[in-house]
Amino acid sequence: MFTLYYAPATCALATHLALEYAGAPYRAESVDFHKQQQRSPEFLRINPKGRVPALATEQGILTETPALLHFIAQSFPEAKLAPLDDAFLMAKVNEFNNYLCATVHVAHAHRVRGYRWADDAAAIEAMKQKVPQTMGDCFALIEERMLKGPWVLGERFSISDPYLFTITRWLEGDGVDVARFPKVADHMRRMEADPVVRKVLADWAA
Amino acid sequence: MFTLYYAPATCALATHLALEYAGAPYRAESVDFHKQQQRSPEFLRINPKGRVPALATEQGILTETPALLHFIAQSFPEAKLAPLDDAFLMAKVNEFNNYLCATVHVAHAHRVRGYRWADDAAAIEAMKQKVPQTMGDCFALIEERMLKGPWVLGERFSISDPYLFTITRWLEGDGVDVARFPKVADHMRRMEADPVVRKVLADWAA
Repeated sequence: MFTLYYAPATCALATHLALEYAGAPYRAESVDFHKQQQRSPEFLRINPKGRVPALATEQGILTETPALLHFIAQSFPEAKLAPLDDAFLMAKVNEFNNYLCATVHVAHAHRVRGYRWADDAAAIEAMKQKVPQTMGDCFALIEERMLKGPWVLGERFSISDPYLFTITRWLEGDGVDVARFPKVADHMRRMEADPVVRKVLADWAA
Repeated sequence: MFTLYYAPATCALATHLALEYAGAPYRAESVDFHKQQQRSPEFLRINPKGRVPALATEQGILTETPALLHFIAQSFPEAKLAPLDDAFLMAKVNEFNNYLCATVHVAHAHRVRGYRWADDAAAIEAMKQKVPQTMGDCFALIEERMLKGPWVLGERFSISDPYLFTITRWLEGDGVDVARFPKVADHMRRMEADPVVRKVLADWAA
Protein backbone atom coordinates (compact mmCIF):
# COMPACT_ATOMS: atom_id res chain seq x y z
CA MET A 1 0.00 0.00 0.00
CA PHE A 2 1.43 3.35 -1.08
CA THR A 3 0.65 6.75 0.44
CA LEU A 4 0.63 9.64 -2.02
CA TYR A 5 1.18 13.07 -0.50
CA TYR A 6 -0.40 15.70 -2.73
CA ALA A 7 -1.83 19.19 -2.77
CA PRO A 8 -4.60 20.42 -5.07
CA ALA A 9 -3.55 22.23 -8.26
CA THR A 10 -0.01 20.83 -8.06
CA CYS A 11 1.81 18.47 -10.40
CA ALA A 12 1.01 15.66 -7.95
CA LEU A 13 -2.05 15.11 -10.15
CA ALA A 14 0.10 13.28 -12.71
CA THR A 15 1.30 10.74 -10.15
CA HIS A 16 -2.19 10.39 -8.68
CA LEU A 17 -3.63 9.59 -12.11
CA ALA A 18 -0.81 7.17 -12.88
CA LEU A 19 -1.53 5.26 -9.65
CA GLU A 20 -5.17 4.97 -10.73
CA TYR A 21 -4.31 3.86 -14.26
CA ALA A 22 -1.89 1.29 -12.83
CA GLY A 23 -4.50 -0.13 -10.46
CA ALA A 24 -1.99 0.42 -7.65
CA PRO A 25 -3.08 0.06 -4.01
CA TYR A 26 -2.71 3.51 -2.46
CA ARG A 27 -4.26 6.12 -0.26
CA ALA A 28 -3.97 9.85 -0.97
CA GLU A 29 -3.13 12.30 1.79
CA SER A 30 -3.58 16.01 1.22
CA VAL A 31 -0.86 18.43 2.36
CA ASP A 32 -2.32 21.84 3.23
CA PHE A 33 -0.21 24.42 1.39
CA HIS A 34 -2.38 27.27 2.77
CA LYS A 35 -1.21 26.30 6.27
CA GLN A 36 2.38 25.82 4.96
CA GLN A 37 2.11 22.18 6.04
CA GLN A 38 4.74 21.29 3.40
CA ARG A 39 7.30 23.13 5.56
CA SER A 40 6.24 21.51 8.85
CA PRO A 41 8.82 19.35 10.67
CA GLU A 42 6.50 16.35 10.16
CA PHE A 43 6.35 16.75 6.39
CA LEU A 44 10.03 17.62 6.04
CA ARG A 45 10.77 14.22 7.57
CA ILE A 46 8.80 12.71 4.68
CA ASN A 47 10.25 14.98 1.99
CA PRO A 48 13.09 17.31 3.03
CA LYS A 49 12.48 19.32 -0.15
CA GLY A 50 9.13 20.45 1.25
CA ARG A 51 7.33 19.62 -1.99
CA VAL A 52 4.70 17.32 -3.38
CA PRO A 53 4.31 14.74 -4.79
CA ALA A 54 5.96 12.34 -2.37
CA LEU A 55 5.14 8.65 -2.44
CA ALA A 56 5.65 6.50 0.64
CA THR A 57 6.41 2.91 -0.31
CA GLU A 58 7.38 -0.09 1.81
CA GLN A 59 11.00 0.52 0.76
CA GLY A 60 11.04 4.26 1.46
CA ILE A 61 9.96 7.62 0.10
CA LEU A 62 10.14 8.56 -3.57
CA THR A 63 9.86 12.05 -5.08
CA GLU A 64 10.21 13.83 -8.47
CA THR A 65 7.37 13.30 -10.93
CA PRO A 66 9.31 11.74 -13.85
CA ALA A 67 10.91 9.24 -11.44
CA LEU A 68 7.54 8.46 -9.84
CA LEU A 69 5.82 7.93 -13.18
CA HIS A 70 8.57 5.56 -14.34
CA PHE A 71 8.41 3.75 -10.99
CA ILE A 72 4.66 3.21 -11.24
CA ALA A 73 4.91 1.98 -14.84
CA GLN A 74 7.74 -0.43 -13.93
CA SER A 75 5.99 -1.67 -10.76
CA PHE A 76 2.75 -2.47 -12.59
CA PRO A 77 3.88 -3.70 -16.03
CA GLU A 78 0.52 -5.34 -16.74
CA ALA A 79 -1.01 -1.85 -16.95
CA LYS A 80 1.22 -1.16 -19.97
CA LEU A 81 1.78 2.48 -19.06
CA ALA A 82 5.23 2.68 -20.67
CA PRO A 83 7.33 0.85 -23.31
CA LEU A 84 9.54 -0.58 -20.56
CA ASP A 85 11.51 -3.05 -22.69
CA ASP A 86 12.25 -0.69 -25.60
CA ALA A 87 15.18 1.47 -24.48
CA PHE A 88 14.68 4.07 -27.21
CA LEU A 89 10.92 4.50 -26.76
CA MET A 90 11.30 4.48 -23.00
CA ALA A 91 13.85 7.27 -23.40
CA LYS A 92 11.36 9.23 -25.53
CA VAL A 93 8.84 8.95 -22.67
CA ASN A 94 11.43 10.05 -20.12
CA GLU A 95 12.62 12.85 -22.42
CA PHE A 96 9.08 14.19 -22.73
CA ASN A 97 8.42 13.94 -18.99
CA ASN A 98 11.75 15.53 -18.20
CA TYR A 99 10.98 18.45 -20.51
CA LEU A 100 7.68 18.98 -18.71
CA CYS A 101 9.45 18.88 -15.34
CA ALA A 102 12.67 20.81 -15.91
CA THR A 103 11.54 23.34 -18.53
CA VAL A 104 7.73 23.70 -18.62
CA HIS A 105 6.99 23.35 -14.91
CA VAL A 106 9.97 25.62 -14.18
CA ALA A 107 8.64 28.26 -16.60
CA HIS A 108 5.25 28.09 -14.89
CA ALA A 109 6.78 28.33 -11.41
CA HIS A 110 8.16 31.78 -12.24
CA ARG A 111 4.59 33.12 -12.04
CA VAL A 112 3.96 32.41 -8.37
CA ARG A 113 7.23 31.10 -6.97
CA GLY A 114 9.71 33.64 -8.30
CA TYR A 115 11.02 34.06 -4.73
CA ARG A 116 12.91 30.83 -5.29
CA TRP A 117 15.27 32.60 -7.68
CA ALA A 118 15.37 36.26 -6.59
CA ASP A 119 14.68 38.27 -3.44
CA ASP A 120 13.82 41.58 -5.09
CA ALA A 121 10.07 42.28 -5.48
CA ALA A 122 10.52 44.02 -8.85
CA ALA A 123 12.51 41.05 -10.15
CA ILE A 124 9.80 38.64 -9.01
CA GLU A 125 7.24 40.78 -10.82
CA ALA A 126 9.40 40.82 -13.97
CA MET A 127 9.52 37.02 -13.92
CA LYS A 128 5.74 36.87 -13.65
CA GLN A 129 5.37 39.10 -16.70
CA LYS A 130 7.30 36.74 -18.94
CA VAL A 131 5.36 33.56 -18.07
CA PRO A 132 2.74 33.85 -20.84
CA GLN A 133 5.59 34.01 -23.37
CA THR A 134 7.69 31.18 -21.95
CA MET A 135 4.71 28.86 -21.42
CA GLY A 136 3.43 29.71 -24.91
CA ASP A 137 6.83 28.89 -26.40
CA CYS A 138 6.98 25.58 -24.53
CA PHE A 139 3.54 24.52 -25.70
CA ALA A 140 4.29 25.57 -29.29
CA LEU A 141 7.20 23.11 -29.20
CA ILE A 142 5.00 20.42 -27.64
CA GLU A 143 2.30 20.99 -30.27
CA GLU A 144 4.63 21.05 -33.25
CA ARG A 145 7.39 18.63 -32.34
CA MET A 146 6.52 16.40 -29.41
CA LEU A 147 2.84 15.43 -29.11
CA LYS A 148 2.26 12.85 -31.83
CA GLY A 149 -1.48 12.57 -31.20
CA PRO A 150 -3.92 11.41 -30.20
CA TRP A 151 -1.65 10.51 -27.24
CA VAL A 152 1.86 11.76 -26.59
CA LEU A 153 3.44 8.61 -28.05
CA GLY A 154 0.85 8.30 -30.84
CA GLU A 155 -1.73 5.52 -30.61
CA ARG A 156 -0.32 4.26 -27.33
CA PHE A 157 -1.44 5.82 -24.03
CA SER A 158 1.38 6.19 -21.50
CA ILE A 159 2.50 7.90 -18.29
CA SER A 160 3.28 10.99 -20.38
CA ASP A 161 -0.43 11.61 -20.95
CA PRO A 162 -1.56 12.34 -17.39
CA TYR A 163 1.56 14.48 -16.98
CA LEU A 164 0.88 16.54 -20.09
CA PHE A 165 -2.74 16.93 -19.00
CA THR A 166 -1.65 18.11 -15.54
CA ILE A 167 0.48 20.91 -16.94
CA THR A 168 -1.91 21.85 -19.76
CA ARG A 169 -4.44 22.69 -17.03
CA TRP A 170 -2.11 25.47 -15.84
CA LEU A 171 -2.14 27.34 -19.17
CA GLU A 172 -5.26 29.40 -18.50
CA GLY A 173 -3.88 30.72 -15.21
CA ASP A 174 -0.59 31.41 -16.96
CA GLY A 175 -2.33 33.63 -19.51
CA VAL A 176 -2.03 31.26 -22.46
CA ASP A 177 -5.04 30.24 -24.57
CA VAL A 178 -4.88 26.48 -25.13
CA ALA A 179 -6.88 26.98 -28.35
CA ARG A 180 -3.59 28.11 -29.96
CA PHE A 181 -2.52 24.46 -29.76
CA PRO A 182 -5.20 22.25 -31.39
CA LYS A 183 -3.56 18.89 -30.64
CA VAL A 184 -2.92 19.85 -27.01
CA ALA A 185 -6.49 21.16 -26.65
CA ASP A 186 -7.89 17.92 -28.09
CA HIS A 187 -5.68 15.91 -25.73
CA MET A 188 -6.95 17.94 -22.77
CA ARG A 189 -10.60 17.41 -23.73
CA ARG A 190 -10.15 13.65 -24.07
CA MET A 191 -8.39 13.47 -20.72
CA GLU A 192 -11.12 15.59 -19.07
CA ALA A 193 -13.74 13.16 -20.34
CA ASP A 194 -11.90 10.12 -18.92
CA PRO A 195 -13.74 8.61 -15.92
CA VAL A 196 -10.42 8.09 -14.07
CA VAL A 197 -9.58 11.78 -14.40
CA ARG A 198 -13.09 12.81 -13.37
CA LYS A 199 -12.93 10.60 -10.28
CA VAL A 200 -9.54 11.91 -9.11
CA LEU A 201 -10.43 15.56 -9.76
CA ALA A 202 -13.71 15.08 -7.88
CA ASP A 203 -11.78 13.62 -4.94
CA TRP A 204 -9.38 16.57 -4.98
CA ALA A 205 -12.26 19.06 -5.02
CA ALA A 206 -14.10 17.29 -2.17
CA MET B 1 27.26 4.31 -33.62
CA PHE B 2 25.89 7.27 -31.67
CA THR B 3 26.75 10.92 -32.20
CA LEU B 4 26.84 13.04 -29.06
CA TYR B 5 26.39 16.77 -29.59
CA TYR B 6 28.02 18.65 -26.73
CA ALA B 7 29.55 21.97 -25.76
CA PRO B 8 32.35 22.45 -23.23
CA ALA B 9 31.32 23.37 -19.66
CA THR B 10 27.75 22.16 -20.21
CA CYS B 11 25.83 19.31 -18.59
CA ALA B 12 26.59 17.23 -21.71
CA LEU B 13 29.64 16.03 -19.75
CA ALA B 14 27.42 13.64 -17.77
CA THR B 15 26.18 11.92 -20.93
CA HIS B 16 29.66 11.90 -22.45
CA LEU B 17 31.07 10.17 -19.37
CA ALA B 18 28.18 7.68 -19.28
CA LEU B 19 28.87 6.72 -22.91
CA GLU B 20 32.50 6.05 -21.96
CA TYR B 21 31.59 4.05 -18.86
CA ALA B 22 29.12 2.02 -20.93
CA GLY B 23 31.70 1.23 -23.60
CA ALA B 24 29.21 2.59 -26.15
CA PRO B 25 30.30 3.19 -29.75
CA TYR B 26 30.04 6.94 -30.31
CA ARG B 27 31.66 10.00 -31.71
CA ALA B 28 31.43 13.41 -30.03
CA GLU B 29 30.67 16.53 -32.01
CA SER B 30 31.22 19.94 -30.46
CA VAL B 31 28.57 22.64 -30.89
CA ASP B 32 30.11 26.12 -30.78
CA PHE B 33 28.06 28.17 -28.31
CA HIS B 34 30.28 31.23 -28.87
CA LYS B 35 29.12 31.27 -32.48
CA GLN B 36 25.52 30.54 -31.37
CA GLN B 37 25.70 27.33 -33.38
CA GLN B 38 23.06 25.82 -31.10
CA ARG B 39 20.54 28.22 -32.66
CA SER B 40 21.56 27.54 -36.27
CA PRO B 41 18.94 26.02 -38.60
CA GLU B 42 21.19 22.94 -38.94
CA PHE B 43 21.34 22.31 -35.21
CA LEU B 44 17.67 23.14 -34.61
CA ARG B 45 16.85 20.30 -37.00
CA ILE B 46 18.78 18.01 -34.64
CA ASN B 47 17.37 19.50 -31.43
CA PRO B 48 14.60 22.08 -31.79
CA LYS B 49 15.23 23.14 -28.18
CA GLY B 50 18.63 24.54 -29.23
CA ARG B 51 20.39 22.83 -26.35
CA VAL B 52 22.96 20.17 -25.65
CA PRO B 53 23.29 17.30 -25.00
CA ALA B 54 21.57 15.68 -27.96
CA LEU B 55 22.31 12.08 -28.89
CA ALA B 56 21.74 10.88 -32.45
CA THR B 57 20.90 7.17 -32.49
CA GLU B 58 19.87 4.89 -35.36
CA GLN B 59 16.27 5.28 -34.16
CA GLY B 60 16.33 9.05 -33.83
CA ILE B 61 17.47 11.89 -31.61
CA LEU B 62 17.29 11.82 -27.81
CA THR B 63 17.67 14.76 -25.42
CA GLU B 64 17.36 15.57 -21.68
CA THR B 65 20.17 14.32 -19.47
CA PRO B 66 18.18 12.08 -17.07
CA ALA B 67 16.52 10.36 -20.06
CA LEU B 68 19.88 9.96 -21.83
CA LEU B 69 21.58 8.50 -18.76
CA HIS B 70 18.76 5.98 -18.27
CA PHE B 71 18.89 5.13 -22.00
CA ILE B 72 22.63 4.46 -21.90
CA ALA B 73 22.32 2.30 -18.78
CA GLN B 74 19.44 0.31 -20.30
CA SER B 75 21.16 -0.08 -23.69
CA PHE B 76 24.39 -1.42 -22.16
CA PRO B 77 23.21 -3.50 -19.18
CA GLU B 78 26.53 -5.36 -18.94
CA ALA B 79 28.14 -2.09 -17.81
CA LYS B 80 25.91 -2.20 -14.69
CA LEU B 81 25.45 1.57 -14.59
CA ALA B 82 22.00 1.42 -12.98
CA PRO B 83 19.86 -1.01 -10.92
CA LEU B 84 17.62 -1.59 -13.95
CA ASP B 85 15.58 -4.49 -12.55
CA ASP B 86 14.89 -3.00 -9.12
CA ALA B 87 12.02 -0.55 -9.60
CA PHE B 88 12.58 1.21 -6.27
CA LEU B 89 16.35 1.65 -6.60
CA MET B 90 15.98 2.66 -10.23
CA ALA B 91 13.49 5.30 -9.08
CA LYS B 92 16.03 6.53 -6.51
CA VAL B 93 18.55 6.98 -9.34
CA ASN B 94 16.00 8.80 -11.48
CA GLU B 95 14.87 10.90 -8.51
CA PHE B 96 18.44 12.02 -7.88
CA ASN B 97 19.11 12.77 -11.54
CA ASN B 98 15.82 14.60 -11.85
CA TYR B 99 16.65 16.77 -8.84
CA LEU B 100 19.98 17.68 -10.45
CA CYS B 101 18.22 18.55 -13.70
CA ALA B 102 15.04 20.32 -12.61
CA THR B 103 16.23 22.03 -9.42
CA VAL B 104 20.05 22.27 -9.24
CA HIS B 105 20.78 22.90 -12.92
CA VAL B 106 17.86 25.36 -12.99
CA ALA B 107 19.24 27.21 -9.94
CA HIS B 108 22.65 27.42 -11.66
CA ALA B 109 21.13 28.63 -14.92
CA HIS B 110 19.83 31.76 -13.19
CA ARG B 111 23.42 33.02 -13.03
CA VAL B 112 24.07 33.32 -16.76
CA ARG B 113 20.76 32.53 -18.44
CA GLY B 114 18.34 34.67 -16.46
CA TYR B 115 17.07 36.07 -19.78
CA ARG B 116 15.09 32.87 -20.13
CA TRP B 117 12.76 33.97 -17.32
CA ALA B 118 12.76 37.80 -17.38
CA ASP B 119 13.48 40.57 -19.87
CA ASP B 120 14.44 43.26 -17.38
CA ALA B 121 18.19 43.75 -16.82
CA ALA B 122 17.78 44.51 -13.11
CA ALA B 123 15.72 41.35 -12.65
CA ILE B 124 18.37 39.29 -14.41
CA GLU B 125 20.99 40.79 -12.10
CA ALA B 126 18.81 40.03 -9.05
CA MET B 127 18.59 36.38 -10.15
CA LYS B 128 22.37 36.22 -10.46
CA GLN B 129 22.79 37.53 -6.91
CA LYS B 130 20.78 34.69 -5.40
CA VAL B 131 22.65 31.82 -7.10
CA PRO B 132 25.27 31.29 -4.36
CA GLN B 133 22.43 30.83 -1.87
CA THR B 134 20.26 28.54 -4.01
CA MET B 135 23.19 26.39 -5.15
CA GLY B 136 24.47 26.23 -1.57
CA ASP B 137 21.05 25.11 -0.35
CA CYS B 138 20.82 22.44 -3.05
CA PHE B 139 24.22 21.01 -2.22
CA ALA B 140 23.50 21.07 1.53
CA LEU B 141 20.53 18.79 0.78
CA ILE B 142 22.66 16.58 -1.46
CA GLU B 143 25.37 16.35 1.22
CA GLU B 144 23.03 15.66 4.12
CA ARG B 145 20.22 13.64 2.58
CA MET B 146 21.04 12.28 -0.85
CA LEU B 147 24.69 11.33 -1.41
CA LYS B 148 25.20 8.10 0.51
CA GLY B 149 28.93 7.93 -0.20
CA PRO B 150 31.33 7.00 -1.47
CA TRP B 151 29.06 6.99 -4.55
CA VAL B 152 25.58 8.46 -4.84
CA LEU B 153 23.91 5.08 -4.28
CA GLY B 154 26.47 3.95 -1.68
CA GLU B 155 28.98 1.27 -2.64
CA ARG B 156 27.56 0.99 -6.13
CA PHE B 157 28.74 3.35 -8.91
CA SER B 158 25.94 4.47 -11.25
CA ILE B 159 24.87 7.01 -13.88
CA SER B 160 24.17 9.43 -11.01
CA ASP B 161 27.90 9.78 -10.29
CA PRO B 162 29.05 11.42 -13.53
CA TYR B 163 25.98 13.66 -13.34
CA LEU B 164 26.71 14.80 -9.78
CA PHE B 165 30.35 15.38 -10.75
CA THR B 166 29.30 17.47 -13.75
CA ILE B 167 27.22 19.84 -11.63
CA THR B 168 29.64 19.92 -8.68
CA ARG B 169 32.19 21.40 -11.08
CA TRP B 170 29.93 24.45 -11.46
CA LEU B 171 30.01 25.36 -7.75
CA GLU B 172 33.17 27.44 -7.85
CA GLY B 173 31.83 29.65 -10.65
CA ASP B 174 28.54 29.91 -8.76
CA GLY B 175 30.33 31.31 -5.71
CA VAL B 176 29.97 28.23 -3.52
CA ASP B 177 32.95 26.61 -1.77
CA VAL B 178 32.69 22.84 -2.25
CA ALA B 179 34.70 22.40 0.97
CA ARG B 180 31.43 23.15 2.83
CA PHE B 181 30.29 19.70 1.66
CA PRO B 182 32.88 17.07 2.62
CA LYS B 183 31.17 14.08 0.99
CA VAL B 184 30.57 16.00 -2.23
CA ALA B 185 34.18 17.27 -2.24
CA ASP B 186 35.48 13.74 -1.73
CA HIS B 187 33.23 12.50 -4.55
CA MET B 188 34.57 15.22 -6.85
CA ARG B 189 38.19 14.36 -6.07
CA ARG B 190 37.66 10.65 -6.76
CA MET B 191 35.91 11.44 -10.04
CA GLU B 192 38.68 13.85 -11.07
CA ALA B 193 41.24 11.09 -10.52
CA ASP B 194 39.34 8.61 -12.69
CA PRO B 195 41.14 7.91 -16.00
CA VAL B 196 37.82 8.00 -17.90
CA VAL B 197 37.08 11.48 -16.59
CA ARG B 198 40.62 12.68 -17.31
CA LYS B 199 40.40 11.39 -20.88
CA VAL B 200 37.04 13.05 -21.64
CA LEU B 201 38.03 16.36 -20.03
CA ALA B 202 41.30 16.33 -21.98
CA ASP B 203 39.34 15.76 -25.21
CA TRP B 204 37.03 18.66 -24.34
CA ALA B 205 39.96 20.95 -23.66
CA ALA B 206 41.73 19.98 -26.90
